[in-house]
Amino acid sequence: MNDVEAIHARSRSCLDAMNRGDIDAVMDHYTDDAMLMFSGVPLVKGADAIRRHWESVDQADREAKLETLEITVEGDTAYEVALFEVVSVDDEGLEHQTSGKNVVVWRRGDDGRWRLNVDICATDF
Amino acid sequence: MNDVEAIHARSRSCLDAMNRGDIDAVMDHYTDDAMLMFSGVPLVKGADAIRRHWESVDQADREAKLETLEITVEGDTAYEVALFEVVSVDDEGLEHQTSGKNVVVWRRGDDGRWRLNVDICATDF
Repeated sequence: MNDVEAIHARSRSCLDAMNRGDIDAVMDHYTDDAMLMFSGVPLVKGADAIRRHWESVDQADREAKLETLEITVEGDTAYEVALFEVVSVDDEGLEHQTSGKNVVVWRRGDDGRWRLNVDICATDF
Repeated sequence: MNDVEAIHARSRSCLDAMNRGDIDAVMDHYTDDAMLMFSGVPLVKGADAIRRHWESVDQADREAKLETLEITVEGDTAYEVALFEVVSVDDEGLEHQTSGKNVVVWRRGDDGRWRLNVDICATDF
């Protein structure tokens, strides 16, 4: 498996963990000093704060999809450019769709695994 | 001037060009196949489309500020993480403030100049 394939696999396993609400598995994908930068949310810095962010999101009725446009690897850093779609169902059973753009800066750890160091999402509307 | 200083300088000159509404100078900072990914705007791909985006923004009563948090260089690719603030005045003279997060993937061209290859901005609210 080359670096691009490894990052694809990590990207998919992170998304799968988000979609099934497995926060421990999600957090295995972030570096300790990662930054989460989402539309509608001020900067979230560091693994503890990112864990609290994901714990606050109701995963039960939410599914995210990602379409990767580009992965570029340079040494132990890589970046991924993607489009995303999130479908969620609110307490009254109404469906909401969100779409947007996502850039991830991946960093390879000493253990050889790639982790999200910057995760920025800009919604389309 | 090292790479980080060169990128800082390019980042500042790009912002200055935006703030004075000099679209030709702004466009000198983007690669031909750059992607602009802003909150509230679907993906804008390629220099021609990015030019039309910036031409559509009223620069006269708009000022953007950028606080760079991090610049990481790997070969001919670099990424910059920043916070931004935009103050604009509408037709009725009312001031609007926007703040958010910005990640730029910079690429060094054959001419040695750094250009924005991906420019993603996520507003805080």
